[in-house]
Amino acid sequence: MADHPTRAPGDAVERARAGDPRALARLVSLVEDGAPELRAIMKALAPLAGGARVIGLTGSPGVGKSTVTSALLGGYRQRGLRAGVLAVDPSSPFTGGALLGDRIRMQDHATDEGVFIRSMATRGHLGGLAAATPQAVRVLDAAGFDVIMVETVGVGQAEVAVASLADSTLVVVAPGMGDAVQAAKAGILETGDVFVVNKADKPGAQEAIRDLRTMIAMAPRGPGDWKPPIVSTQAMAGAGIEELAGRIDEHWAWLDSSGEGGRRRLARAREEIAALALAALRQRMSGLPGGSLLDTLAGRVVSGDTDPYAAADELVSAAAG
Amino acid sequence: MADHPTRAPGDAVERARAGDPRALARLVSLVEDGAPELRAIMKALAPLAGGARVIGLTGSPGVGKSTVTSALLGGYRQRGLRAGVLAVDPSSPFTGGALLGDRIRMQDHATDEGVFIRSMATRGHLGGLAAATPQAVRVLDAAGFDVIMVETVGVGQAEVAVASLADSTLVVVAPGMGDAVQAAKAGILETGDVFVVNKADKPGAQEAIRDLRTMIAMAPRGPGDWKPPIVSTQAMAGAGIEELAGRIDEHWAWLDSSGEGGRRRLARAREEIAALALAALRQRMSGLPGGSLLDTLAGRVVSGDTDPYAAADELVSAAAG
Repeated sequence: MADHPTRAPGDAVERARAGDPRALARLVSLVEDGAPELRAIMKALAPLAGGARVIGLTGSPGVGKSTVTSALLGGYRQRGLRAGVLAVDPSSPFTGGALLGDRIRMQDHATDEGVFIRSMATRGHLGGLAAATPQAVRVLDAAGFDVIMVETVGVGQAEVAVASLADSTLVVVAPGMGDAVQAAKAGILETGDVFVVNKADKPGAQEAIRDLRTMIAMAPRGPGDWKPPIVSTQAMAGAGIEELAGRIDEHWAWLDSSGEGGRRRLARAREEIAALALAALRQRMSGLPGGSLLDTLAGRVVSGDTDPYAAADELVSAAAG
Repeated sequence: MADHPTRAPGDAVERARAGDPRALARLVSLVEDGAPELRAIMKALAPLAGGARVIGLTGSPGVGKSTVTSALLGGYRQRGLRAGVLAVDPSSPFTGGALLGDRIRMQDHATDEGVFIRSMATRGHLGGLAAATPQAVRVLDAAGFDVIMVETVGVGQAEVAVASLADSTLVVVAPGMGDAVQAAKAGILETGDVFVVNKADKPGAQEAIRDLRTMIAMAPRGPGDWKPPIVSTQAMAGAGIEELAGRIDEHWAWLDSSGEGGRRRLARAREEIAALALAALRQRMSGLPGGSLLDTLAGRVVSGDTDPYAAADELVSAAAG
């Protein structure tokens, strides 16, 4: 079957590459659903991906992350680039639509075929976004998008996950929210390639810049390493966005010249494969022939006949066999 | 080796059952570290666990969750029960010590050998707490604790995870924080067996109770199903704690009479085994002979020679073989 993909997925890939937004939306939905057709689609996409730049945007709610994203999107469109946005909210396993408001704010771009905007939902699967988001990036990449922005809400693991799939990670803060200190505590500071102080006209902007500058200066850094710049923006008015895009360009140039870009792409592929392997095992656990090895093992653990480690070994052997 | 466990782990188990807090602390540390000795220990513990009641406590920061936990702990000690507290902070993969303040607040109980209090840390492993927390519960259970309270900070997936390992889940809210509405949005409402309105002397307590009552009434419920009660407390002063303990007793009685208790224990064992199986696969992925199958596959994905799904299949086969 892998050598004779059915017509439909190949078709959708062709149409997505030609710029059909509905074909693209359908491919991303298949990714979110973990649909069986994905295997044939991803096989078809494999040689096509690799040309896009991936920008990750993280930051607390309220700092204006979506406004920065939207302004950058406008800038890239002016350069004639095709740009996609994936908005990810990993903190909400049940609602799955928390970013709708942000999506609506991006409707300026809604009729532009060079733009694709999508809120990714988890559909209730723990760990689902870890597997689905890189695949959605891969779909946009193969469909010919030049820039893909992945915006996330939340703190902690979410940022780290976004950083692991981006070429360039933007950490967005706003004055007076203590964000810089929070970011340092949560370990986000190390993941930032470019820092954005948005709402730079608000009181406290200078202090936020100073705090960031101090923390960046304190981080260990060798000669030839990238030193993250800090850019002030008022994204709502478009101020500072051109400078921000310029800094991101510089980061891309550094990624290419230093070899770090290649290393990040390798690391991303590693994460991607590992997430899919774990998802596959998870799926096989819940759907083994007879459907009930896990139930049987659980019963034996409850009755004290076996322990969870021994049961897990038995399960892994059965799932892979 | 499984039939001839080394002396040390068996020893620690015996001493933990006899009430030696240092032996118990060592066992929990082994769980956090995912140490190799765990397999022998868990085998030894298997027939001993199953007697404890597990209470999960969830709620936003600032509602007084630790104070409620501490007050309940005092109540159970007055009944002569041994009680353990595991404090879990899944939102913080890097710091790993965020609950230290709460731990200090619980020092009233620090010299009591019938009490064990521990902040669980992730030690940087994604998904680590999902595997480690149920094992720590199992250790306390086998060591003869009658009641084990698992307290978590954070929103979203964390609550769901706690609910899946508890016999009874307490959702703690405070007046004026819009918590009831937030809880409903995050899907936490469905996981609550008992609702606690803490700081009930503060303005807005009646509104919080009314909101909760409305939302509980709206949830679909058959005859014989448990209807979550709402208890008002001022945990700092000990007010309402006796009633709360009484409601939890009623929930336990219902768990036994309805058969739901057995179903929850089975579900918990299932989750436990699945989490360990995934952790085992993860570990094998990073430590395969040659150490570099994942690297090789990642290189092939980056160059477009293969796709991530096909690479994941290859990896799972190799890891399980």
